Amino acid sequence: MELSSILLEQAVDALATLPGVGKRTALRYALHLLHSTDDEFRSFSHALQHLKEDVHFCSRCHNISDQELCPICSNPKRDGTTICVVENIQEVMAIENTQQYKGTYHVLGGVISPIDGIGIADLNIASLIERVRSEQPREVILALPTTMEGDTTNFYLHKQLKAFDNLLITTIARGIAIGDNLEYADEVTLGRSLTHRIPFDQLS
Amino acid sequence: MELSSILLEQAVDALATLPGVGKRTALRYALHLLHSTDDEFRSFSHALQHLKEDVHFCSRCHNISDQELCPICSNPKRDGTTICVVENIQEVMAIENTQQYKGTYHVLGGVISPIDGIGIADLNIASLIERVRSEQPREVILALPTTMEGDTTNFYLHKQLKAFDNLLITTIARGIAIGDNLEYADEVTLGRSLTHRIPFDQLS
Repeated sequence: MELSSILLEQAVDALATLPGVGKRTALRYALHLLHSTDDEFRSFSHALQHLKEDVHFCSRCHNISDQELCPICSNPKRDGTTICVVENIQEVMAIENTQQYKGTYHVLGGVISPIDGIGIADLNIASLIERVRSEQPREVILALPTTMEGDTTNFYLHKQLKAFDNLLITTIARGIAIGDNLEYADEVTLGRSLTHRIPFDQLS
Repeated sequence: MELSSILLEQAVDALATLPGVGKRTALRYALHLLHSTDDEFRSFSHALQHLKEDVHFCSRCHNISDQELCPICSNPKRDGTTICVVENIQEVMAIENTQQYKGTYHVLGGVISPIDGIGIADLNIASLIERVRSEQPREVILALPTTMEGDTTNFYLHKQLKAFDNLLITTIARGIAIGDNLEYADEVTLGRSLTHRIPFDQLS
């Protein structure tokens, strides 16, 4: 697609860096912005600027927040004795949307991935260990992705955390997704879901 | 979806104004921008800012351009005696992509639409008439959308242009799209495609 303006081309290239956005969609976005009023464009770009410059991360759990403590950490109704360790704030949102969890979180900001150059020092692991030491929670739930990188991170965290007395370390259940047919499940998942089978009367 | 940050919420609302973007996609974009480096974000927002502030429109055809004249108008190989009238710059790009047209364009910037409050004075119609008067082209092709608003605009332009001697006024062919089944075509299109049937040996 040839554009008659370098400026338009540069805007399209910039918008095409957004996840899942190709050149065609980026062009649609760019033309929309071009045809928007000055006020509309100002509030659009201010909102993004503010997000990037003024957003805070919770000093306790590293969740996104406008204050020193995020709304979850500062909510007295949340159970501070359970810490759910997640990769990113997207997972906090996903778990919050289930409305099944009343504890607190700890956002690592990624998982250990030597290929991507992400090591232990790049993640919020030291602050997790320190938090477990000072807060002495009852349980830490490892809710990292079920990938090789997630498993590596789980393994490392488990090694660091098992030294704490009376700390229960759990991980989210892996198995057949609800609504899925067994015949289409991959064999690793199916195998694990048999190994870790649960008593039928515990099924809720 | 509840977000723990007002700033994030505002950025999501801003991104959700882009065409075809819902809250979920906007959140994905916002988190991507939040996690981008300062340099990446700076070049992203600069590209949009430049587009909005510095872009020009061609003084002859109103196509988007970085110069006084757009690359099409300033190209001596283009046939200046044919003017294709289109609604927006998207249509210029679409027609350019066909590589079937070697004339010039005139971008109206919309079509007459009383419901949306778009009248004759809001469009680049006066400059089209003036251009026809001074350039005396051989042909004006009306390539507006085949909607009621497009037809209204076609009708108005035809009324204004038919006064010029020796000016051929044409419109793009309407009919069954290539690859379409007749049984799924709407009856207006099918009816017109029969009325305006063409000799088989003219089909290319």
